[in-house]
Amino acid sequence: MMSTQPRLVEVRQNVLKQNDLLARDLRRRFREAGVFVVSMVSSPGAGKTALLEKLLTLLGQECCVAALVGDLATDNDARRLARSQAPVKQIVTGTVCHLEATMVESALTGWNLDELDLLFIENVGNLVCPASYDLGEDLRLVLMSVTEGEDKPLKYPTIFNTADVAVITKLDLVTAVEFDLNSARDSIQRVRPGMKVFEVSSKTGEGINELILFLALQSAAPATAGRNAVELG
Amino acid sequence: MMSTQPRLVEVRQNVLKQNDLLARDLRRRFREAGVFVVSMVSSPGAGKTALLEKLLTLLGQECCVAALVGDLATDNDARRLARSQAPVKQIVTGTVCHLEATMVESALTGWNLDELDLLFIENVGNLVCPASYDLGEDLRLVLMSVTEGEDKPLKYPTIFNTADVAVITKLDLVTAVEFDLNSARDSIQRVRPGMKVFEVSSKTGEGINELILFLALQSAAPATAGRNAVELG
Repeated sequence: MMSTQPRLVEVRQNVLKQNDLLARDLRRRFREAGVFVVSMVSSPGAGKTALLEKLLTLLGQECCVAALVGDLATDNDARRLARSQAPVKQIVTGTVCHLEATMVESALTGWNLDELDLLFIENVGNLVCPASYDLGEDLRLVLMSVTEGEDKPLKYPTIFNTADVAVITKLDLVTAVEFDLNSARDSIQRVRPGMKVFEVSSKTGEGINELILFLALQSAAPATAGRNAVELG
Repeated sequence: MMSTQPRLVEVRQNVLKQNDLLARDLRRRFREAGVFVVSMVSSPGAGKTALLEKLLTLLGQECCVAALVGDLATDNDARRLARSQAPVKQIVTGTVCHLEATMVESALTGWNLDELDLLFIENVGNLVCPASYDLGEDLRLVLMSVTEGEDKPLKYPTIFNTADVAVITKLDLVTAVEFDLNSARDSIQRVRPGMKVFEVSSKTGEGINELILFLALQSAAPATAGRNAVELG
């Protein structure tokens, strides 16, 4: 390895530590305001925004939802999600391959958290970098689409390990791409035994109600949910 | 931003500089040995390995081809590509979200470059991190699949800017996913005007011959090709 590597690792650890401290503050703020926070990670094009659009529209009829969406460039996603009527802000990261707690904190400026029930945070499309950055969320969803191949969890184990729930997306394409659902489920369980898995199609709506019900139940009892359970346990 | 950010940037620049120096050495070695090197970047699941399998099999009938394939974990891709009969080595990066020149150099150990005509390097599935790392390649292909959405180039401009050629993959799914090819072509040209674009399906074989012909012509005259042209020009 290169000679500067240890120093780079050390500096990275400092950045991560600062991020963790800020994420802890954010988590406290969210809890005090009664906001349940769900983050989404996946590779680019796995359908985070399509699923989010569905969730914001459906959940928006029952409670007060909002979203922060991260991208390197463009505010395409925020404009697309605005159709759901929910408040949405775009975080443009430039060349940074993940969201950090400080970006989330800045993006919240001007929003009254007390008015929110649920906040979604859509990370930059990336199966590697977002893994290390706590954003103060209660629950982290990792999405993989049926177009990506069944072994993605085995190839990107860290992001699946840091997530609480897996969502297999674009279920309507299973036949067209000859996706082996059993093999994908097996890959997920091999990387993270016992992981909860949802299988959805944002296009046909299949599986969406199950996911919404799960999120609603989790948000009603956040202290027993995902990342909280880990933190409090 | 966080207080350690400037120092992190500085250290990163050192790493990048060292990588560039090593990549320059690699490029010289490749040229002296008469090896044309093509790297591939894309998001996870865009079909790099499927395309590579096709290219190795077809090109292997005409010349001596080999491949290095990067992943965070597993040697699934190398095992899959071994079916093509071409020499293939897996580079396992652990938690590193991109290949670096030093990894390529290590992986070449034991191979006689003089016996090779074409070397493919498949990067880790990531649309952000690989952009900054020169691997000594002559030509960098960026793949995007029709399942990913037409605006990916606008959202990940840097990787499209550092690549020489764009390849739209999974063309057989265009109708199933209602992909707008014109809009995708337009996105690519807006980010990188004049970029050469291939449209292929590894499943049906559509467009593969055009890509192979292009690679063969480029490898015959590497001094006028992609990254060389930039370097020499």
